[in-house]
Amino acid sequence: MTNEEMLASVAVSSWKLVIGRLESGIAELGDEQLQKHVAPGKNRLQYLVGHLAAVHDRMFPMLGLGDRLYPQLDEPYLTNPDGTLPDPMTGTELKRALIEVNTKLTAAFEKLTPQEWLQKHGSVSDEDFAKDPSRNRLAVLLSRTNHTSFHMGQAVLAK
Amino acid sequence: MTNEEMLASVAVSSWKLVIGRLESGIAELGDEQLQKHVAPGKNRLQYLVGHLAAVHDRMFPMLGLGDRLYPQLDEPYLTNPDGTLPDPMTGTELKRALIEVNTKLTAAFEKLTPQEWLQKHGSVSDEDFAKDPSRNRLAVLLSRTNHTSFHMGQAVLAK
Repeated sequence: MTNEEMLASVAVSSWKLVIGRLESGIAELGDEQLQKHVAPGKNRLQYLVGHLAAVHDRMFPMLGLGDRLYPQLDEPYLTNPDGTLPDPMTGTELKRALIEVNTKLTAAFEKLTPQEWLQKHGSVSDEDFAKDPSRNRLAVLLSRTNHTSFHMGQAVLAK
Repeated sequence: MTNEEMLASVAVSSWKLVIGRLESGIAELGDEQLQKHVAPGKNRLQYLVGHLAAVHDRMFPMLGLGDRLYPQLDEPYLTNPDGTLPDPMTGTELKRALIEVNTKLTAAFEKLTPQEWLQKHGSVSDEDFAKDPSRNRLAVLLSRTNHTSFHMGQAVLAK
């Protein structure tokens, strides 16, 4: 493995580690437990599952890895705060959707070369990327990995 | 900048982004506000500040970047849960310690070459590193960045 490959591989491993912990953490939660709030007046666990599914699903077009699987999750779990719209699916179905999105993303990540990780992401123009080449796919991966950790810190409080 | 340098630089930028948000988030908090708990029966904000200071301080020897600045924070904020031992300093002093540790770490991170990021960290033996070269400094950086995000997700609930 070259240095470039190892550097990119460590970032993908960090994503896989965090996603693995997330999926283990929610594995045992049924529909009823997913209705728990992380703290009084704060988001339900189900909202966090839907939120992570929506945010991760948006990575497909953003990273040029294909079409979204669940665009219908944006309205209830991203655009609007918890409690605004009804859940479009059960907690168990939502967990399954999150795992499906994560699994397909991870498979796509494992095929990217270091050079491809350094290409621009889909939310930056050619001009802006020329000025700031750090706005690349790898920066999005690290940002989304940390976003998952942020909400996992909240989810563990509901235990 | 070479590809290797850019890959390592994106990881350091992710650390700086997360640490920057952490420091902005706690900037306005006084001693009294730092006594708030993130949720009923959960850690105080001051415990999280001390915990992050201790964990980050341990990165100096672990990454071969020098001696620790605040080893006395391990007992109250790492080895023992919140509420076990008295705070050894005020919240304001603890915030200052955390910022000092972060600032010195970041300065050291910015000097490491991609090759140095791929060297083994201090908690792995030569034999184990030969078997698994992903146990390198970069893996520690990404892990600690996510650890910070995890606790920041909790800290924002205290608002």
